Amino acid sequence: MIVDCHGHYTTAPQALWDWRKRQVAEKGGPSKEPVITDDEIRESLEGAQLRLQKERDTDVTFFSPRAGSMEHHVGDAAISADWARVQNDLIHRVCTLYPKNFAPVCMLPQSPGVSPANCVAELERCVNERGFIGCNLNPDPSGGWWTEPPLIDRWWYPLYEKMAELDVPAMVHVSASANPAFHFTGAHYINADTTAFMQLIQGDLFKDFPTLKLVIPHGGGAVPYHWGRYRGLAQDMKRPPLKDHLLKNVYFDTCVYHQPGIDLLLEVIPVDNILFASEMVGAVRGLDPETGQHYDDTRRYIEASGLSATDKQRVFEGNARKVYSRWSPRQ
Amino acid sequence: MIVDCHGHYTTAPQALWDWRKRQVAEKGGPSKEPVITDDEIRESLEGAQLRLQKERDTDVTFFSPRAGSMEHHVGDAAISADWARVQNDLIHRVCTLYPKNFAPVCMLPQSPGVSPANCVAELERCVNERGFIGCNLNPDPSGGWWTEPPLIDRWWYPLYEKMAELDVPAMVHVSASANPAFHFTGAHYINADTTAFMQLIQGDLFKDFPTLKLVIPHGGGAVPYHWGRYRGLAQDMKRPPLKDHLLKNVYFDTCVYHQPGIDLLLEVIPVDNILFASEMVGAVRGLDPETGQHYDDTRRYIEASGLSATDKQRVFEGNARKVYSRWSPRQ
Repeated sequence: MIVDCHGHYTTAPQALWDWRKRQVAEKGGPSKEPVITDDEIRESLEGAQLRLQKERDTDVTFFSPRAGSMEHHVGDAAISADWARVQNDLIHRVCTLYPKNFAPVCMLPQSPGVSPANCVAELERCVNERGFIGCNLNPDPSGGWWTEPPLIDRWWYPLYEKMAELDVPAMVHVSASANPAFHFTGAHYINADTTAFMQLIQGDLFKDFPTLKLVIPHGGGAVPYHWGRYRGLAQDMKRPPLKDHLLKNVYFDTCVYHQPGIDLLLEVIPVDNILFASEMVGAVRGLDPETGQHYDDTRRYIEASGLSATDKQRVFEGNARKVYSRWSPRQ
Repeated sequence: MIVDCHGHYTTAPQALWDWRKRQVAEKGGPSKEPVITDDEIRESLEGAQLRLQKERDTDVTFFSPRAGSMEHHVGDAAISADWARVQNDLIHRVCTLYPKNFAPVCMLPQSPGVSPANCVAELERCVNERGFIGCNLNPDPSGGWWTEPPLIDRWWYPLYEKMAELDVPAMVHVSASANPAFHFTGAHYINADTTAFMQLIQGDLFKDFPTLKLVIPHGGGAVPYHWGRYRGLAQDMKRPPLKDHLLKNVYFDTCVYHQPGIDLLLEVIPVDNILFASEMVGAVRGLDPETGQHYDDTRRYIEASGLSATDKQRVFEGNARKVYSRWSPRQ
């Protein structure tokens, strides 16, 4: 079985984006949820994520709202709360229509400067009432201005406490960039992955939360490529070796869009810390002229990597079952 | 001959840092330059950079002020102008004392929100009067708040014009991080490299400056690891292939502190775009317990990479001669 732990509803029906536009313009938005039929949902997926699952022979995608659309920096906490509810409910409908193909991961109603304790109710609602198996945690709800304390700060603890209690992991994933310095998928996403990992090196978060699980997407940003740098920095800073300090709690996905990158990831990061993912339909949609295949068809790179069958099973399925412990395959 | 294109005077005598402390405290600083004897300079280098050059059998280091000490975010443009002059003059003394071992690269007197045109006079002074062969360009003089326009913006053009006229390259290198989200050597440096490259993808800078040369340090940040992502993003954005769009003007150094990282760099980036560097004595000073060698002894990784003798010569020397065209070996 092949589990893709990183997919977003990038192809959601236009009515969702129209609702959002009105919500932002009216600084509060429509009192009713966007009107979207089941057929519109089916149509938005059949030609895209579901087709690609079939073509690439993958089984299930852990599915959350479009990352760039979380836009925690837009509006205030009340706006974020409504928007998160609307988006998460739509994800829930997708997963109810296609329970074999998608498992739900929620966005959180973060807002710059507002305590993450404010996200606890929506996380509980999603997990306890709607069967969500994980959440996306934005380390920079300001959208590229990085005004929030680092992830090791007690600021974040109320949310971690609830995640630990519910036993749900978070993927550390930023949203759109409001800062012209940072292209969103080309700089902000990758920088955030790198930044989050370095923040974790600096603290002792997992002493306080030994069961907390964080997934760093996009192959861990720059971290595996600079694994020697991070091992060396940790050592100079008198931190424990990274495998003891972080790798019982931190995982990387495989959203790295060429063979040499995947080969490096598999070489330097222990196989137990790697979860298969493609983020399709996502940041990079074209065909690689060097291979004739989609850049984001990451399954091909894993298959070609020379990983043993046992290790492949871990990356494709076993590790996802371990990290997203609330998930099990549906019929 | 082995040319290390990336070294900073991290071991400068205490009198320099004391001078800076006073300058910042007094918001203007001492009217006289810091008093540092030639012997103090010798002492600061003999046990550090010069010893390591000998041990690692490298010949010359392109040497600039300590990156973290540029601190363009501290004080105003006048403070930055004095500090740049003091630091660059000290680099000049180092290179005069050890002309075989060091070649001078200057810092610029940048200040947040102040036009880069303001850096032209110091660049001219350094290059024309003191024989400097390159400069360090900080894409984020705010120190981690990223308030400046992207590098493709016309904001930067007056500086590029002077660089092109003088035929000096810039290493795109940030300074200290004043933002608690970003550890300076573990997040801010690497993020800046990634960000700068993505900014360059977004524009057409080298149409306007066909001879401009930029070096992205730290192995290009996350870029080579995500080379498929960057090729794919450029393609989706209808930009030319990266080799045509950027690789006639953009170079990466080899400050990647483990063998798999260097192997990936050499596999995906054309050899003509890679310049040997170690950034010693720099961000990572320890011994790698896995190899028993210094993490930053990057020469070993290149030697072990399987690169042909011709290609090694390019990485170790030829490309540096091409990019830093004002440099030639001294006796």
